[in-house]
Amino acid sequence: MQTLSENKCFGGIQGVYSHASEACGCDMTFGLFLPEQAAEGPVPILWYLSGLTCTHENAMVKAGAQCWAAQHGVALVFPDTSPRGAGVANDEAYDLGQGAGFYVNATEKPWAANYKMWDYVTEELPALVTANFTVEEERQGITGHSMGGHGALTMAMRLPGRFRSVSALAPIANPTQSDWGRKQFTAYLGPDEALWAQHDAALLMRRLGFDGPVLIDQGSKDQFLEQLKPESLAYAMTERRQQGIFRMQSGYDHSYFFVSTFIGDHIAFHAEALYRD
Amino acid sequence: MQTLSENKCFGGIQGVYSHASEACGCDMTFGLFLPEQAAEGPVPILWYLSGLTCTHENAMVKAGAQCWAAQHGVALVFPDTSPRGAGVANDEAYDLGQGAGFYVNATEKPWAANYKMWDYVTEELPALVTANFTVEEERQGITGHSMGGHGALTMAMRLPGRFRSVSALAPIANPTQSDWGRKQFTAYLGPDEALWAQHDAALLMRRLGFDGPVLIDQGSKDQFLEQLKPESLAYAMTERRQQGIFRMQSGYDHSYFFVSTFIGDHIAFHAEALYRD
Repeated sequence: MQTLSENKCFGGIQGVYSHASEACGCDMTFGLFLPEQAAEGPVPILWYLSGLTCTHENAMVKAGAQCWAAQHGVALVFPDTSPRGAGVANDEAYDLGQGAGFYVNATEKPWAANYKMWDYVTEELPALVTANFTVEEERQGITGHSMGGHGALTMAMRLPGRFRSVSALAPIANPTQSDWGRKQFTAYLGPDEALWAQHDAALLMRRLGFDGPVLIDQGSKDQFLEQLKPESLAYAMTERRQQGIFRMQSGYDHSYFFVSTFIGDHIAFHAEALYRD
Repeated sequence: MQTLSENKCFGGIQGVYSHASEACGCDMTFGLFLPEQAAEGPVPILWYLSGLTCTHENAMVKAGAQCWAAQHGVALVFPDTSPRGAGVANDEAYDLGQGAGFYVNATEKPWAANYKMWDYVTEELPALVTANFTVEEERQGITGHSMGGHGALTMAMRLPGRFRSVSALAPIANPTQSDWGRKQFTAYLGPDEALWAQHDAALLMRRLGFDGPVLIDQGSKDQFLEQLKPESLAYAMTERRQQGIFRMQSGYDHSYFFVSTFIGDHIAFHAEALYRD
């Protein structure tokens, strides 16, 4: 693991690190904020998965999350959203290929060679992070924005016991029924829609749910409501009687101005679950 | 004035606007955050001047300032740092020309045609802002980072009565003695160093001081300490018995991770002065 940069931030360290990824077959970069409480002992981990077109950097510089993570003594991990590099398959569209991994393990050509973001985020990167930083593997939460909200929700539900809490900001909630989903699942996973269902938060909520608290924020003026389909997730959460809160935030759009407005609430929500014993 | 974008943010509106600038002879873009308290009546204004290479956008998306401005009911204005455009003189160096206006009125060719950032920020833009937004002209504060800290301090001291409070994050404090200053003042103002002294915070502090509270934050691990010369400003503030606080923040560098860490303190500091009657 290489340190690309470390900046003091709210008393802790905002670092950027890279490493050769076995899962993705390329070098991967991630951001990690370690609050100063880590000097006294391991701190809980909150994973932040980013959306389409983002790298490890967007939320790290635009969400204002470190302020609240420092207050609550929680580490933040900001993984990249796809494999990267000249040798990695790509597409001209912003919503396929690099920057658009959709948090799945691709099985189809040409994507299968590198696009293993499910394994990367759920196995390889956690092992690296817990081995190299003063963090508590037993206390993890996960959140994300848009495509990253999709990743957070699907991972939390399919890995019971791993995360104590899950939240999402404007998640792609029902990708099997959306232009943000059908195109990518066809490319990465092939035509069998039964495989897609493993990566659809609304469907997983109906089938599995989550053994812990869930928090969802959605802006009412989000320009991508048609692709996000939040109503499917709200329906599924309510039908299942899932412990959780779904908030429709009046007037907010899909931008980081929306994310930064509510990320403090999300970190407080996770901190409560992460520090409960 | 044209609206380029408006996003709901912490209950208020983060807008980006452009207009034909008479002072600069080109179109200029600025950001303005109007907190929701403006719906009930005019709110105080805090000017945020940015540093070298920045546009109106950097602090607006990276400083996390809206959170605190919303809390305190203060409008934030984010001006650009220079004139812009194909017809505007420029230089290959990052520290001269576009993105590096240094908040002066240039008198030398080729800069004099457009580089009137002093007039733009102290006259033209305030007139536009007070005419178009629900803000209180009588309650203004000013802050900035690096070159913007230089701008904030020099404007506050040379326009007595205009600003109730001034603060700066890692300001260029003594530019007449620095590579960040001598080069630009030579280009923009010519060789007469007596003219430069009007744009040097440490010199102005010795000569004029500020009739109100001053807050300065400086990171001890700032990679540009040699160019910033904070010790000259600390000396001048102390020698003058200036009402104020100078804080050396251990371990922090020059980045927006430093700015975002302390901007909340700065906005609280200004709010206290701005709401005092």
